[in-house]
Amino acid sequence: MAHRERLHRPDHIYPVDEWRLVERQFFPDYLAATETLFSTANGYLGIRASFEEGAPAWQSGTFINRFYETRPIVYGEEAFGYARTGQTIVNVPDGTLVKLYVDDEPLYLPTATMDRFERALDMRSGTLDREVIWEKSSGRRVSIRSRRLVSFVHKHVAAISYEVVVLDADAPVVIASELVNHRDHEEEDGDPRTGMVGGRVLKPQVHRAHEARVVLGFSTRSSGLTLACAADHLIETDAGCTVETTCGEHSGQVVFSVAARQGVPIRVTKFLTYHTSRRVPPAELCQRAEWSLDRSVEAGFDALLENQREFLDDFWHRSDVRVTGDSAVQQTIRFNLFQICQATARAEGAGVPAKGLTGQGYEGHYFWDTEIYVLPFLIYTTPRIAKNLLRFRHSYIEQARARAAELNQKGALFPWRTINGEEASAYYAAGTAQYHINADIIYALKKYVDMTGDTEFLTEVGAEMLVETARFWFDLGFFSPSKAGRFVINGVTGPDEYNTVVDNDCYTNLMARENLRFAASTVQALLDDDPRQFVYLAAKTGVSPDEIRDWCRAADEMYVPFSDEHRIHLQDDGFLDKEKWDFENTPPENYPLLLHYHPLVIYRHQVVKQADVVLAMFLLGHEFTLDQERRNFDHYDRLTTRDSSLSACIESIVASEIGYTDKALEYARYAALMDLADVAGNVRDGCHIASMGGVWMALVHGFAGMRDHDGQVSFTPRVSEQLRLAICFKLTVRGQLLSVAIDGTSCTYTLSEGTGLTIMHCGESVSLRPGKAETRPIVR
Amino acid sequence: MAHRERLHRPDHIYPVDEWRLVERQFFPDYLAATETLFSTANGYLGIRASFEEGAPAWQSGTFINRFYETRPIVYGEEAFGYARTGQTIVNVPDGTLVKLYVDDEPLYLPTATMDRFERALDMRSGTLDREVIWEKSSGRRVSIRSRRLVSFVHKHVAAISYEVVVLDADAPVVIASELVNHRDHEEEDGDPRTGMVGGRVLKPQVHRAHEARVVLGFSTRSSGLTLACAADHLIETDAGCTVETTCGEHSGQVVFSVAARQGVPIRVTKFLTYHTSRRVPPAELCQRAEWSLDRSVEAGFDALLENQREFLDDFWHRSDVRVTGDSAVQQTIRFNLFQICQATARAEGAGVPAKGLTGQGYEGHYFWDTEIYVLPFLIYTTPRIAKNLLRFRHSYIEQARARAAELNQKGALFPWRTINGEEASAYYAAGTAQYHINADIIYALKKYVDMTGDTEFLTEVGAEMLVETARFWFDLGFFSPSKAGRFVINGVTGPDEYNTVVDNDCYTNLMARENLRFAASTVQALLDDDPRQFVYLAAKTGVSPDEIRDWCRAADEMYVPFSDEHRIHLQDDGFLDKEKWDFENTPPENYPLLLHYHPLVIYRHQVVKQADVVLAMFLLGHEFTLDQERRNFDHYDRLTTRDSSLSACIESIVASEIGYTDKALEYARYAALMDLADVAGNVRDGCHIASMGGVWMALVHGFAGMRDHDGQVSFTPRVSEQLRLAICFKLTVRGQLLSVAIDGTSCTYTLSEGTGLTIMHCGESVSLRPGKAETRPIVR
Repeated sequence: MAHRERLHRPDHIYPVDEWRLVERQFFPDYLAATETLFSTANGYLGIRASFEEGAPAWQSGTFINRFYETRPIVYGEEAFGYARTGQTIVNVPDGTLVKLYVDDEPLYLPTATMDRFERALDMRSGTLDREVIWEKSSGRRVSIRSRRLVSFVHKHVAAISYEVVVLDADAPVVIASELVNHRDHEEEDGDPRTGMVGGRVLKPQVHRAHEARVVLGFSTRSSGLTLACAADHLIETDAGCTVETTCGEHSGQVVFSVAARQGVPIRVTKFLTYHTSRRVPPAELCQRAEWSLDRSVEAGFDALLENQREFLDDFWHRSDVRVTGDSAVQQTIRFNLFQICQATARAEGAGVPAKGLTGQGYEGHYFWDTEIYVLPFLIYTTPRIAKNLLRFRHSYIEQARARAAELNQKGALFPWRTINGEEASAYYAAGTAQYHINADIIYALKKYVDMTGDTEFLTEVGAEMLVETARFWFDLGFFSPSKAGRFVINGVTGPDEYNTVVDNDCYTNLMARENLRFAASTVQALLDDDPRQFVYLAAKTGVSPDEIRDWCRAADEMYVPFSDEHRIHLQDDGFLDKEKWDFENTPPENYPLLLHYHPLVIYRHQVVKQADVVLAMFLLGHEFTLDQERRNFDHYDRLTTRDSSLSACIESIVASEIGYTDKALEYARYAALMDLADVAGNVRDGCHIASMGGVWMALVHGFAGMRDHDGQVSFTPRVSEQLRLAICFKLTVRGQLLSVAIDGTSCTYTLSEGTGLTIMHCGESVSLRPGKAETRPIVR
Repeated sequence: MAHRERLHRPDHIYPVDEWRLVERQFFPDYLAATETLFSTANGYLGIRASFEEGAPAWQSGTFINRFYETRPIVYGEEAFGYARTGQTIVNVPDGTLVKLYVDDEPLYLPTATMDRFERALDMRSGTLDREVIWEKSSGRRVSIRSRRLVSFVHKHVAAISYEVVVLDADAPVVIASELVNHRDHEEEDGDPRTGMVGGRVLKPQVHRAHEARVVLGFSTRSSGLTLACAADHLIETDAGCTVETTCGEHSGQVVFSVAARQGVPIRVTKFLTYHTSRRVPPAELCQRAEWSLDRSVEAGFDALLENQREFLDDFWHRSDVRVTGDSAVQQTIRFNLFQICQATARAEGAGVPAKGLTGQGYEGHYFWDTEIYVLPFLIYTTPRIAKNLLRFRHSYIEQARARAAELNQKGALFPWRTINGEEASAYYAAGTAQYHINADIIYALKKYVDMTGDTEFLTEVGAEMLVETARFWFDLGFFSPSKAGRFVINGVTGPDEYNTVVDNDCYTNLMARENLRFAASTVQALLDDDPRQFVYLAAKTGVSPDEIRDWCRAADEMYVPFSDEHRIHLQDDGFLDKEKWDFENTPPENYPLLLHYHPLVIYRHQVVKQADVVLAMFLLGHEFTLDQERRNFDHYDRLTTRDSSLSACIESIVASEIGYTDKALEYARYAALMDLADVAGNVRDGCHIASMGGVWMALVHGFAGMRDHDGQVSFTPRVSEQLRLAICFKLTVRGQLLSVAIDGTSCTYTLSEGTGLTIMHCGESVSLRPGKAETRPIVR
């Protein structure tokens, strides 16, 4: 395994604090990483933690979910059906800039003498706070305290409170607040080789200023989206002050000049707002932006703070996973959960980008990460968001139908990566060929329905997806004479991207079977119990009772590759026929392999990028015996490089299940420290949101041993002596709130909200009534 | 099979003539096709048959073998080891332009009234001849006769003779001859999406004019090659005449103004020359160009004609395949052979582009086409050229070593497609993965050595290639536990590009075994018989006796996929596990499949683009029983779309061998008419030179049943009753010239040159002495 050396909490950089991510020193080397880690976001709007001074910065970034630019995808050699339209989330105008000049000397951290420096992402208040005491060349000190938030409650609003005190003497102070479209100050750099959208993406459409307010309106050049962003300011000071506001096409500036008096605070509050649309013209959006500002200014910064706190109190009440006895672990867990919250809270009518809104990595695209890694957490803590995300997937079903047709298949095929619903993967072998995305979506749909009881959603939205995906699978595979008439699926790529375009990928076949079965049972139930709905569904999809029989037959006859000789599941038909990878002679610096070996070299060997059979063993544990799980795990674990951040969390869960406590811990640590310790070496590009969801799963499904097959919640806790921690969390199950507290020997279940729930504990049924704690010993 | 409807000679366009390709009418619809078909070339320089008038033209093209521009290859998604440098043959300045104005009225074919129009590519004189009688709007007629050649003898020289006679009255005549860099008159159009080199490729470096001569010197922007091109003119007329010469950076013009008298010919002779270099500066190249012109002008056009005729007399003497009784077939055969001659004659220090020098299709790249499809003809007719081509391959061995290393392999891997020795395939699955290129080269090397006896070449040049390719195969494959320890080769693409990145491609494994065996026997022989040479080889390659044993072991244990159940060879391990392609519901317009289906759809099915197992059965016939050949052919023939032009010729040969006469004829016709009847629909992009080589093979190996396993020439003629033709051809075998004449019942062998040769005829040994014909009955 690569990067084992990185699996240590960088406590020297981020000292332990259960509720805050803190740094107490300015570390230039960690500039890019901290821009990501200290990001503030609400799922709609995200702002990287670049400094108010604007410099130094690795990449200042303000991102709006689903606000993207398009470009034609360039191929060295074209072929039919290749994805055509590249999509990249746009870095929108930067509103974080609040530049400070004291005695005309600017604050610049790399050269400034600082008596004090602390920056903290406060996970209870939802703010990024900074305190600096700056000792100027003259020896005179200036105190600067700033607070930044992206509002969870008002999704279009962000704000910065910026307070300056000259501590040792009166001095002229200038505070220049800006809203700047950085990209469009760059040279025309449209180099399509980078695969990124180059050049001037935003066309200026509106710019105006009045009093301390600036408003900018844009449209994108190719995708035709519109954007308004605006900033307004309040200044509170007892000192004399002038304000000057200017605005151009690409930037606006509000400059406060203050004759600052020693010890007298100057407080500037900057209210920011961003509005985006696919239809509304920029002028109208700018009007909306002004209304948002009007309301924010009227309510004031403290109201935003209060809203933020209330929102997060509620979030933590439902979502916190508490551990006792290790503040560092507690902080790590909370950091992971908090970033999921920031990535999803207001992702309305949008998906969850792989990096949330913390960076431009993966271009702001939506992958299966959402359904398999992020939705479980949401389903169990905030099912409303889970539902929104599933509804959003469904909104692209027309594009998915068109894509299936383009690939000569019936039904619908959801894109491997996308923002606008069209396939955006420019490498089909590790993109379009990952047909399992269809089954992943349906897996999440089933979990959502099972755990919420929201069958209406299933009828209204889910059934159509079920028909089209099941239809797709039935058309993709066939009953193969060379496999004794079993249903096989050839030429697909499973989750493991180091083995592409294979036959009978174990994960894919198992998940497709689930997909077919759930479709069959759901549509059959409609036909039996709600014929009117069935007719409605048939009108939309043309589904017929015959088709249901086809799906059942394919599911019943689904071929699952298994080696009788080795008594393991084969990752795919040919997996064991490959040459073994020479791990011994692969130097650590050659990981991830994909950056150091040609795909053909990787594909030719028994080497695995990420959990594949092992993921199937977690998601579909009921299909595997414990002996199979152990043997499979033993086989694949040593072949897995973990070059994908999606791997370790899943391996931790399965390791827990089969009693490999050390591995369970190691892999959980790997996942939990993915970003904090920069395990993958690319945290600068954004947080690994899927791995963060995986951390929650490793805790709840792994250590607490929770399973939910067909909606039955069960626990087989495996919080071992090695973990030495008690763990406590809540789950929302069909509208009821279940508290679970596990220590080394027993497990206590309390129904905090709800009317009654039956769960399983170590194979035994436990009936819970509201408010009454039930404690059970952990059976080993 | 697609395009069956096209398999008819277009006699209405190209009337039958045994020695000429003729058109007797100007067909605007065939403009693009005729530009290709009537091309003149010598293997170094090629000129498409655009009209002297310059318009109309589909694509005027003048190409110089190995004169190319480079560009970075653009990928939608990058990966390690992908080919980096795109290479495209450059369309160099056009010297064909001789524009005619009579009474200031220009000749423009689409609107001109013509009393006579004939254009002919004369395959004996090596000229493109045109005769036009143009009736002007005034009713007065003008006779125009032109003759164009690209000299086989003087490789840098082309020439045009242009004669005008005003037939009915005196008239002012202007003849404007130009040398023009068309590309560089275009707008800057560097659109990398086209995958082509855009914009201004040629930087002007030199331009000068004196008397009737213009000289242009250029260098390419990226590849750093240099070019000089120049034109000089003679005018012969009894009428009064003025000459005006002008020259700019991108074009030069010589204008003759003549007071033409009725019935008095005006003859302009235009001498053209092209010189290219990787090192020599343009100024020096321009000097060379002037020397070439000096010599040409001095010798005159008739001398060029005479040289040309002598060269082709010799070519036909060695290379003609004569048939009796069908002039149309004769013409078709000669057209194919003549184009091979034009593609290869002076390809010195270069390869054979897939389209020769007749178009820009495949960007002027060299593929395995050279070794497997073109070299057989050359080895048996002009072994000197075959040797040059093999030596040229060897000249890229350093790049091949580097490429193998980049792909994590020992030895050398020759590029799938290239001009400059670097891999230029931008799609590895149907490019780099075609590792069989290594074995193809070695196959041709062995054939060359066997049929020439040139063992010196083997020692000097071949041994190094043998060591590096055998080393490559041994490293690429491994002894597989899951195949009982047999040597397997996984993750490769065979010739059939509709099944990519497969395990144990039958063709590849068989050809690799040949490669390993030939390397082992050659190096072992050196070790035993010529230790000094072995030491020299070991110094260059590090080869050791142990390695020879490895190669033998791998060859002996080579796994060849075979189905005991179906008693056929498997194209690859998984071929029979795929779903069958639904040919019945594939409309004709959906061929070639690659333009209408996503690669994943094609790869998932039992469908074959081109002969693969069938090619192996031809190249390595000794490895197959006749029963296997029949069963294999039956199985794969019906799955083959023939979407590649490399397929039909090979299938014809095997069909002949197994007695499928109808199919043999049909496929031979398919190959022979590939360009004349535009079977593949893309002749505008250039001739399919490999298929043309395949036509010779279909005749000699197919109908005449010639085989040459291990250097033993044998014949089992299959010129059946259906063919109804007698066939007659010559073969050069170890420096001796063997004439073979076959009719329906017997076969006559004559050693026209040489000292004695033993061949096999229908399993019986025949000793030939010089000059004495031996006739044998054909045994069925």
